[in-house]
Amino acid sequence: MSTTITRADCAERDRQDPLRALRDRFDLPEGVIYLDGNSLGARPRTALARAQDVVAREWGIDLIKSWNTAGWFELPKRLGDRLAPLIGACAGEVVVTDTTSLNLFKALAAALQIQASGPNAGRRTIVTERSNFPTDIYMAEGLTRWLERGYQVRLVDSVEEIPAAVDDDCAVLMLTHVNYRTGYQHDMAALTRHAHAQGALAVWDLAHSAGAVPVDLHAAEADFAVGCTYKYLNGGPGAPAFIWVPARHQAAFSHPLTGWWSHAQPFAMAHGFAACEGIGRALCGTQPVLSLALVECGLEVFEETTMAAIREKSLGLTDLFIELVEATCADHPLGLVTPREHARRGSQASFTHPHGYAVMAALIERGVIGDYREPEIMRFGFTPLYTGYADVWDAVAILKDILDNASYDSALERSAVT
Amino acid sequence: MSTTITRADCAERDRQDPLRALRDRFDLPEGVIYLDGNSLGARPRTALARAQDVVAREWGIDLIKSWNTAGWFELPKRLGDRLAPLIGACAGEVVVTDTTSLNLFKALAAALQIQASGPNAGRRTIVTERSNFPTDIYMAEGLTRWLERGYQVRLVDSVEEIPAAVDDDCAVLMLTHVNYRTGYQHDMAALTRHAHAQGALAVWDLAHSAGAVPVDLHAAEADFAVGCTYKYLNGGPGAPAFIWVPARHQAAFSHPLTGWWSHAQPFAMAHGFAACEGIGRALCGTQPVLSLALVECGLEVFEETTMAAIREKSLGLTDLFIELVEATCADHPLGLVTPREHARRGSQASFTHPHGYAVMAALIERGVIGDYREPEIMRFGFTPLYTGYADVWDAVAILKDILDNASYDSALERSAVT
Repeated sequence: MSTTITRADCAERDRQDPLRALRDRFDLPEGVIYLDGNSLGARPRTALARAQDVVAREWGIDLIKSWNTAGWFELPKRLGDRLAPLIGACAGEVVVTDTTSLNLFKALAAALQIQASGPNAGRRTIVTERSNFPTDIYMAEGLTRWLERGYQVRLVDSVEEIPAAVDDDCAVLMLTHVNYRTGYQHDMAALTRHAHAQGALAVWDLAHSAGAVPVDLHAAEADFAVGCTYKYLNGGPGAPAFIWVPARHQAAFSHPLTGWWSHAQPFAMAHGFAACEGIGRALCGTQPVLSLALVECGLEVFEETTMAAIREKSLGLTDLFIELVEATCADHPLGLVTPREHARRGSQASFTHPHGYAVMAALIERGVIGDYREPEIMRFGFTPLYTGYADVWDAVAILKDILDNASYDSALERSAVT
Repeated sequence: MSTTITRADCAERDRQDPLRALRDRFDLPEGVIYLDGNSLGARPRTALARAQDVVAREWGIDLIKSWNTAGWFELPKRLGDRLAPLIGACAGEVVVTDTTSLNLFKALAAALQIQASGPNAGRRTIVTERSNFPTDIYMAEGLTRWLERGYQVRLVDSVEEIPAAVDDDCAVLMLTHVNYRTGYQHDMAALTRHAHAQGALAVWDLAHSAGAVPVDLHAAEADFAVGCTYKYLNGGPGAPAFIWVPARHQAAFSHPLTGWWSHAQPFAMAHGFAACEGIGRALCGTQPVLSLALVECGLEVFEETTMAAIREKSLGLTDLFIELVEATCADHPLGLVTPREHARRGSQASFTHPHGYAVMAALIERGVIGDYREPEIMRFGFTPLYTGYADVWDAVAILKDILDNASYDSALERSAVT
């Protein structure tokens, strides 16, 4: 490799890594370098025993009593309180529930309702990026289409266009903090400040931020946020998502998905809907207990370190990856799409390649698990809790070998790589 | 006991019970007579190993690949196809996803949309019963309130009032097939026929029907249905719910919760929403895989018998329970609220008692697990897959003992018993 960095250097960095011990909190298969924790986080070691306990004891033996004795009813709030410090939220402001799509629907509906009751009642536009994760746009479109009354979604084509798009018809600025394809990280505080200055509310999707980069929702004065627990938070496949409603907005938090879990007295079985106080308003129906319970195994690991330490290592890993790829694969048509600037980078590094899909397939075959997103983008996610510097070195060596020997099938059909 | 039925008679019926072997498909704790399968079904024996496999292998080892190799993406449809025969649905018409509340929201939204595009476009009312499960009413209220345009929910106070309430402003008749408190079972075919004759659509909640009583949605010509997998279907605590959209309504099925799982090409990450064909339109966001996967363990058991055989035993169990309670506890102020008529009865028997909550607490302490619902209603659910006739005899003997000796604390606070 045409770099002065050696594998031994990387192994030495691993030895000095203060997060090194946390790797043992995860079970990862032998022979795999897992760079897809941005899509599905690895399994915390405690998750198997926890699943067994929920199934065998809580469900199998204690049965219906577990709603109270095992705290099933309180899980969305208990997990929310545990997640809160990772995103700069307070206790009583987060619940883990439903899906990111549904939580975004609730947040957008509430934001539009708040605007409709205030001085900007005439505003009709939700502004977002065309490059946002599609489901966010679909949900916003679904909401505005059904509300009618002139509501619409406006898509902007670049970060630079966002400020001007937040005009006097903009009710809500809805952004994903870290882009799922490029790893671009928005300046949450600045954009929220701009939205507020223009009379808009700011709704943030933290799917690729929570557990990946430091987030301080209160410092940014964000209005609402949603996010995912099965990526960097390692909560398990499809584990329920989260929603943050700051205390200052809770009294006005109102949305159409008014299920019994958001009722002031769910077991009174009252005939009229009366929303409870607090974050419970973001709940709807009965939650999938088993999937929900395992989210706690992921959150526990974060309590052994800090987001600052995770961020420092994350930047170390992505810097190293970018440097090694550019130094050793310079002859190949690779293009970095992730920002070099630290402040604008999430915890991933994405490169384009004309045969990106085929190259990724070859990498996966050799045990380097990343993924692929149209067009031509190979995504590599870096999860400091269980990925080391030598892993990065090994992954790049394999990438270089595949590219140098063109040992990928360039005719390979592009298809779904999650 | 002042009845000619003996415990030996009951044990003999158990010996001759064609479903007897299925009891071994469940793990139930020692010393418990579980009459709350109408709230949370018991644990199928296979569920523990399945949970271990999903957590340890599918998640832990195969990681992201499992979306394809373990069929995670297809789970909602695969489970839906497996559930379909239990409710008279066809393959490709059911998905297991989200919660009953959310699925009802989708079905109601779609039904209103279909009406708004047809000859009854001016209709604005959803008719339901005041005694319906509250979340059904709350969701209908949430939808109509947000739609504005004059939409409303109309509550009727008795079954007899339903036909007249389906008037020329009624867009949708929304009913729960079997009432959660009383166990009253509606005549689905007759009410659907009446709704259609009046120009309304019929949406059915099968929460207390699926796996409990025979249901034939196609024979009844119902329009949409939703239901629960964690009660009589034994899918596990809070397991995802189901929604049925018959083939004839799928092209017109449209609702606001348009997440990426309902997109025609979810991985194309296209910018505009384009609904897929078929039942996938009822999906929204990423599903909780672990909770979802265990639903299959519950469904497998049903393939070893028929709903006709289950129904026969269910009526045998509820008839026996009612007969024994009335014969042996005649001196106590118990009131049967479940219909005696078989055609109108679900798979539960509910009795009122002035100290119902306290009596139920005493029963639970003695290992007879039922539950309680305001006002004064003790609910006993009968699940023929794992409940026998001798269980019924024993449960009534304990109830009689508690009542005869007033060994319950009548001062006990009423509170949530799920």
